[in-house]
Amino acid sequence: MNVDGEHFRSIWFDESDQSVRIIDQTRLPHFFEIIELSTFQETCHAIHSMQVRGAPLIGATAAFGIYLALQEGITELDDAARQLIATRPTAVNLQWAISRVMTAIGNASGDAAQDIALATAQSICEEDVSNCTAIGEHGVVLIRELAGNKQGPVNILTHCNAGWLATVDRGTALAPVYRAWEEGIELHVWVDETRPRNQGSSLTAWELVKQGIPHTVISDNTGGHLMQTQQVDICLVGSDRTTFRGNVCNKIGTYLKALAAHDNEVPFYVAVPLSSIDWDADNIPIEERDNEEITRIRGLNDQGELDSVRLTPEGSAALNIGFDITPGKLVSGLITEKGIVAATEEGIASLRETTK
Amino acid sequence: MNVDGEHFRSIWFDESDQSVRIIDQTRLPHFFEIIELSTFQETCHAIHSMQVRGAPLIGATAAFGIYLALQEGITELDDAARQLIATRPTAVNLQWAISRVMTAIGNASGDAAQDIALATAQSICEEDVSNCTAIGEHGVVLIRELAGNKQGPVNILTHCNAGWLATVDRGTALAPVYRAWEEGIELHVWVDETRPRNQGSSLTAWELVKQGIPHTVISDNTGGHLMQTQQVDICLVGSDRTTFRGNVCNKIGTYLKALAAHDNEVPFYVAVPLSSIDWDADNIPIEERDNEEITRIRGLNDQGELDSVRLTPEGSAALNIGFDITPGKLVSGLITEKGIVAATEEGIASLRETTK
Repeated sequence: MNVDGEHFRSIWFDESDQSVRIIDQTRLPHFFEIIELSTFQETCHAIHSMQVRGAPLIGATAAFGIYLALQEGITELDDAARQLIATRPTAVNLQWAISRVMTAIGNASGDAAQDIALATAQSICEEDVSNCTAIGEHGVVLIRELAGNKQGPVNILTHCNAGWLATVDRGTALAPVYRAWEEGIELHVWVDETRPRNQGSSLTAWELVKQGIPHTVISDNTGGHLMQTQQVDICLVGSDRTTFRGNVCNKIGTYLKALAAHDNEVPFYVAVPLSSIDWDADNIPIEERDNEEITRIRGLNDQGELDSVRLTPEGSAALNIGFDITPGKLVSGLITEKGIVAATEEGIASLRETTK
Repeated sequence: MNVDGEHFRSIWFDESDQSVRIIDQTRLPHFFEIIELSTFQETCHAIHSMQVRGAPLIGATAAFGIYLALQEGITELDDAARQLIATRPTAVNLQWAISRVMTAIGNASGDAAQDIALATAQSICEEDVSNCTAIGEHGVVLIRELAGNKQGPVNILTHCNAGWLATVDRGTALAPVYRAWEEGIELHVWVDETRPRNQGSSLTAWELVKQGIPHTVISDNTGGHLMQTQQVDICLVGSDRTTFRGNVCNKIGTYLKALAAHDNEVPFYVAVPLSSIDWDADNIPIEERDNEEITRIRGLNDQGELDSVRLTPEGSAALNIGFDITPGKLVSGLITEKGIVAATEEGIASLRETTK
């Protein structure tokens, strides 16, 4: 998407020096910095430290990680794969992308294996862009319909960041928003700040600033009140893993917004690329992250530097659960690249038939 | 309650210099500082800037404000009252306390009026302490019962700060917790950090540290997941205004927790001193506060100073709604100084009969 007049993806391969480039998302929204991943360990670090995040993007990054491992001459690829998967346990895309690269490599070795890994990683990126574009096309229908039934902007609430920064380009939950905006539909986005890591106020808000889309950052506590007072027309969120039963694992707090949407009859849709569906299991490992993300917070100080301040008193424990699970019964529908389906076992199964 | 071995109230009158003392709650949890209110304007500032906050405490503070106005020779008491009420529009206690002082003063003037105002403010404080103590006695029954039915600690989730710092002493929602702890009941409190002003992580957590009660600070997004996974036995929150119909206005985000409690059959109780009941109207003015509370956050920097950092990008709008309304149908019961009643018109009416 657009950053100050130039088109960027969130990850790309630089042919000139055979290395991978990413946007360091831990520096946003205050600094836009591109960094190079030239080793396998740098890739693991980038995923774990959330320089890259978002289910589709960490899948793509991990695919490049396998390529970089081969480039460095790492021969224990299974170990490397396990190490990559352990960086973030919840999103199923990580496993999906790695397994796809490993399968493509098969018994190849040397330069051939490297070429296959790189080509597969690049295919994953291209497919991600076309899948996100398709999600945008299916999802925009919902926004178009809402716009046709009201005066003034369509008010969309989103949680966390499921925009282009969470994918390779276009985004999942934000893809229909970008598509609607390009069509000239009047929009306004409520951006949950999304504690503890504030992906909403730092990433979603930044994306929307750069596209010029009207938006308002709110505390995570606010969405219920906005829905009670008819200030939200639709909720659109992403998903890190959606099970074959239609249960949606997404950033912690998503479930609370789904409850409020249900209580106030606000449509609640989840954008789900097929790569994030768990076709086999309904139990989802929920990532627990460093408690410092609760006890401290990072932002820009008055000297224009990134700085963190302590929020809690000495002596208080903290717990940092990364995700929660929204039961399919609270979800109006899943927006996939194949179309919109119900968040039920039947809905998901209908996608499987067209995929496998 | 206890602060490092010494008993404190959140507000008191110092006979030696005829001025009012408060704890500056904007400096907690990092600094415990007592400040003096010696003028009417300082009182308005203390309430508006949230050096004091919490419905019962701002009522008590406003009562002292009228006394200080008289002490300064301000004759337009109605103007002073209006100015005080405008500092925080949502809590009904402010109006209640001011109207009580004004009624007590009646046609008195000079020293007599001052004496009456001071005595009334002090009565409001004493009554607040005994009401909070009574809320603790009624509420502890719920915790005792939960403790009897399980192994391990009773897990209590609370939102914002409805502890002793929100009242004159003992607290509303935390009064039963303190009472249970004093009885030796094994407890653990989940503390919602409560963005944007973080009254949970800064005030509730600090109170619990000082009393030695086990607790864990969580992001506001987390409570739903904890309830889904049976890690919450009861929710206890306060209220800034509860209407005669049983609808509960409390810190923004309370409604989302009530929805989750309802969805997971977790008891959800609201501690309501009678002074915070609106006996007449069901429409509640919802305070909107400075957007900087969303775009910036304050904490302790590495130099040991309070500092604020910017969270959002330049160009993003923000909205800061202070409260939301939890419909009575989501509330298991109201814990008042007169006992526990249903959050219904009948429940509230039963309190009125014993009061008026």
